[in-house]
Amino acid sequence: MDNLDKLIRDIPDFPKKGIIFKDITPLLKDPQGFMSAVDQISDYFKDKEIDMVVGAEARGFIFGPPVAFKLNAGFVPIRKPGKLPYDTEEISYELEYGTDTLQIHKDAISKGQNVLMIDDLLATGGTMSACCKLVESLGGNVAGCAYLIELCFLNGKELLNKYDCFSVIKY
Amino acid sequence: MDNLDKLIRDIPDFPKKGIIFKDITPLLKDPQGFMSAVDQISDYFKDKEIDMVVGAEARGFIFGPPVAFKLNAGFVPIRKPGKLPYDTEEISYELEYGTDTLQIHKDAISKGQNVLMIDDLLATGGTMSACCKLVESLGGNVAGCAYLIELCFLNGKELLNKYDCFSVIKY
Repeated sequence: MDNLDKLIRDIPDFPKKGIIFKDITPLLKDPQGFMSAVDQISDYFKDKEIDMVVGAEARGFIFGPPVAFKLNAGFVPIRKPGKLPYDTEEISYELEYGTDTLQIHKDAISKGQNVLMIDDLLATGGTMSACCKLVESLGGNVAGCAYLIELCFLNGKELLNKYDCFSVIKY
Repeated sequence: MDNLDKLIRDIPDFPKKGIIFKDITPLLKDPQGFMSAVDQISDYFKDKEIDMVVGAEARGFIFGPPVAFKLNAGFVPIRKPGKLPYDTEEISYELEYGTDTLQIHKDAISKGQNVLMIDDLLATGGTMSACCKLVESLGGNVAGCAYLIELCFLNGKELLNKYDCFSVIKY
């Protein structure tokens, strides 16, 4: 299915004035659009022998699991502090204002496993970069990063230029 | 795949003393276990002509999308206040201590659409019951509720006895 960008809705001034938010819910509720996005990501990485698909809470949970299902891989959640119940590895990283912290279970990934990272949106790349470091700290091999949407004008790809990146929709 | 309960890890005293938390991450990272759970839910509801699968943030996002993918349905997220960018319908409901509020986009579901509700865990049923009311307020027909895990001793099913409920693993 082409023209998936027609299923993305611009919301001006959300979450704050001056930002145009990319609302992915019209695409999610369209079975053909949703399936096409999952298929495009899965097809791009189908020869990479992906063992695990990793997504960060909350919107990384939406595309990660169906891509894992299609690639016959497992799914690993990265979560905010206090949510994962077992032993965790954590990373703190800088945001525009302040810092954020993310955690992954220490036993989530085995050494040498091929990992596909997924999120709905690539903006500056800060969150994805932190997630890749978490996976690498466990010995995982980041085989690629996939997004539904890439905001190219924010150059997030530069921070992630050592990885194979794929985006379904580019702005 | 039988014995999926072997992929659920008990974590004593999480998130607080006296509670035994059911950790689903070992199942998620096992491709066969994860696929079997998605298949069992999809198979149970495959003749119900499901139009939309609905899951609430954050763990309802994990099983909802792959089941939607398998049933050729759309996926609709229910989120905490301030996360959905378009016009929303909301509901507040009582927790053990205090109240919680959830929102859905008003245009997420059309009148008469068949909706499958998904969450990872059925405990007292309070959150699922609130989610069903949100869907019904938009004119959706709740065709069923599915869970990875049901804690039968908490009788959550009683609150949801007018719906067709299916759980992959029961305790």
